[in-house]
Amino acid sequence: MTTGLAMQTASDVSAKPGASPLAPARFPEMPPVRGLRLATAAAGLRYRDRDDVLLVVLEPGSAVAGVFTRSQTAAAPVLWCRQILGEGQARGLVVNAGNANAFTGAAGDRAVQQTAVAAAGILGCAADQVFVASTGVIGEAPAVDRLVRALPGLHNGLAAGGWEAAARAIATTDTFAKGSTRTTEIEGRPVSINGIAKGAGMIAPDMATMLAFVFTDAAIAPAALQRLVEDAAARSFNCITVDGDTSTNDTLLAFATAAAGHAPVHDPADPRIDAFRVALGEVMVDLATQVVRDGEGARKFITITVGGAESDAAARVIGLSIANSPLVKTAVAGEDANWGRIVMAIGKAGERIDRDRLAISVGGFAVAADGGPVPGYDEGPVARHMKGAEVEIAVDVGVGSGVATVWTCDLTHDYIDINASYRS
Amino acid sequence: MTTGLAMQTASDVSAKPGASPLAPARFPEMPPVRGLRLATAAAGLRYRDRDDVLLVVLEPGSAVAGVFTRSQTAAAPVLWCRQILGEGQARGLVVNAGNANAFTGAAGDRAVQQTAVAAAGILGCAADQVFVASTGVIGEAPAVDRLVRALPGLHNGLAAGGWEAAARAIATTDTFAKGSTRTTEIEGRPVSINGIAKGAGMIAPDMATMLAFVFTDAAIAPAALQRLVEDAAARSFNCITVDGDTSTNDTLLAFATAAAGHAPVHDPADPRIDAFRVALGEVMVDLATQVVRDGEGARKFITITVGGAESDAAARVIGLSIANSPLVKTAVAGEDANWGRIVMAIGKAGERIDRDRLAISVGGFAVAADGGPVPGYDEGPVARHMKGAEVEIAVDVGVGSGVATVWTCDLTHDYIDINASYRS
Repeated sequence: MTTGLAMQTASDVSAKPGASPLAPARFPEMPPVRGLRLATAAAGLRYRDRDDVLLVVLEPGSAVAGVFTRSQTAAAPVLWCRQILGEGQARGLVVNAGNANAFTGAAGDRAVQQTAVAAAGILGCAADQVFVASTGVIGEAPAVDRLVRALPGLHNGLAAGGWEAAARAIATTDTFAKGSTRTTEIEGRPVSINGIAKGAGMIAPDMATMLAFVFTDAAIAPAALQRLVEDAAARSFNCITVDGDTSTNDTLLAFATAAAGHAPVHDPADPRIDAFRVALGEVMVDLATQVVRDGEGARKFITITVGGAESDAAARVIGLSIANSPLVKTAVAGEDANWGRIVMAIGKAGERIDRDRLAISVGGFAVAADGGPVPGYDEGPVARHMKGAEVEIAVDVGVGSGVATVWTCDLTHDYIDINASYRS
Repeated sequence: MTTGLAMQTASDVSAKPGASPLAPARFPEMPPVRGLRLATAAAGLRYRDRDDVLLVVLEPGSAVAGVFTRSQTAAAPVLWCRQILGEGQARGLVVNAGNANAFTGAAGDRAVQQTAVAAAGILGCAADQVFVASTGVIGEAPAVDRLVRALPGLHNGLAAGGWEAAARAIATTDTFAKGSTRTTEIEGRPVSINGIAKGAGMIAPDMATMLAFVFTDAAIAPAALQRLVEDAAARSFNCITVDGDTSTNDTLLAFATAAAGHAPVHDPADPRIDAFRVALGEVMVDLATQVVRDGEGARKFITITVGGAESDAAARVIGLSIANSPLVKTAVAGEDANWGRIVMAIGKAGERIDRDRLAISVGGFAVAADGGPVPGYDEGPVARHMKGAEVEIAVDVGVGSGVATVWTCDLTHDYIDINASYRS
């Protein structure tokens, strides 16, 4: 079992051979979040010699909010979390890596229930206060006995720290551990927000999923927390794409322990949480873009800003159309500022645009304006920008004031290698 | 200039080095279509030493129908064709390769008008009876003077044959010429249907487009022809995908010269054209699947059949979700019957399915049924099927009777090579 001690010794994962070239320099120093403890363990669900289960235990009175995959083939743990979310109360979270418990029929549903019941027995709470998330192979029933057997040891090992170990325990094909933290204040009291995530592609090869968990000691009522999380997800996790494929297991859960001691917040627009709202959004964008930076085969991180759309939602659709276009992504891989492909991707998005007011810039340099190439366009500075690891594409579609920012990565030979040979 | 003579000498294009391994053995022998003549020429719009313009002249009384890209950045020729289609009358078709006349603003619109006016002057018809289609580079105004100067020579060279030369003249990055033909009868009179197409990917690198032209000597009124073409397009061109990218120039035009001499058909459901309807559908599926077989980097041709959906439209959405999934396409490239990725792609389509009745087979062998892996699944025969050049995936989603067939190709290193290095 790994506990908080691991935090000091393993923060150089991003420098490991095989880590994405776009990985952050290090895992952040994460402060404790009052009102919760965590532990990881090796249950041997699929992997050898590594932790693959995370247990987080929350004090009574903790609120929970969640956003899940819209897949019609959602995995059993997703169905469970959706079902118990209504109460808004959480005492425990159990996450395993190695088996997604997706496309496993009734056996999969039973496995989730067994896990929740066993954890609830140890924690002394109701089973519907235990959230469960899984990531890994699709179509194999999980070895739930091993998971259940690991729970008492996990409970004995609970500690206030161990965030990087937690991020590692939930990883599958990730090349680096993903964490983010912010501290802020509510009513003058310090509040922490810690988040961990896993995912390398919307869905890694077989190893389904993007999972993200955010923890804070703020006191936010469940309905308000749900609204805050949905708003932040719309501008973070719902604005990233690696390959346009959507997992059966995508799960984002946020927990608020209320241990910070300020008066509870019931209104998501409450001005007391203006700074908290910004910090929460930053944590979620940080985690979401780390998933993109670990995109399979990614060599370049692409930020796409869309303006002038009919609405923010329309801008997001246009941005994702550009971000999901294999032709745009291969052009970036080839360091080619091929704006014809950007025009194509804008056109196929289906949202209203003004062809004759369309403007495109790359790296801050205008390449097209007023519906045609910029007169006297100098490819030099744009070509230099394209050679870097961070590529910026900005588009204005000329019909309104809707804006969105979307993040993706390039499409390279390594993506093919990883995905065409995964099981061989 | 190349005329009908070329037909006998150049039919081994598919054996050329660099041709897709999925190309048909040869260009088909195409009979004349009474009531029309064609010619090709080298106008030098972009290419050297090859024909790049096609002129087709139709007898007075010819009907026309069309289906176009839904792109919001549709090219100038597409806007022109849409505008003049309402009359349903056609006397001429001018197609050029090398310049897409897309994202060219008002200059692009003027270029199309100049072309139509010049051709109309030579043919002695109204300009709005001359259809124009372009394919090639986006964002450069076409050298319309060269195109117009080529028209008199094209007119002098008109002949009843020359279909393969026509298919070559409209090609850009295609690795083989695409044609299809059927002969049938209406009221006992022989009727020909000839089609040519170009496209290698929904959009080839910069070289926008899928173009397809179908010609028949049947006598079909414009409204009936439009309906027949839309129905056939829904089951052919709208069921193929290479990379999910949609061109600015996609154009399908069908012309009916009425020269076959039977009584005109006004009702698309008229039982006199039952055989014609089938033959038209076959020509369009043949052309559409040839485009897929020339998909950039394609090594395997994939047929995806979806059944049990709520409607045919829902089945098509599910089929295209599978066909567009980079993870499914790379799995096929890797000869891996990775049905977990198929489950994922079905789930993300958003159409209603029954998770616990979902069934998947590959090459006719069941791999999943009743929402889980098939008990005692033997990977051997499936693995052998995956090694072939033709891969068949069948899915039943268990909620209704909607069906669809969708065609695509695998995603390989060659796709990345072609698209990441096109302009370098």
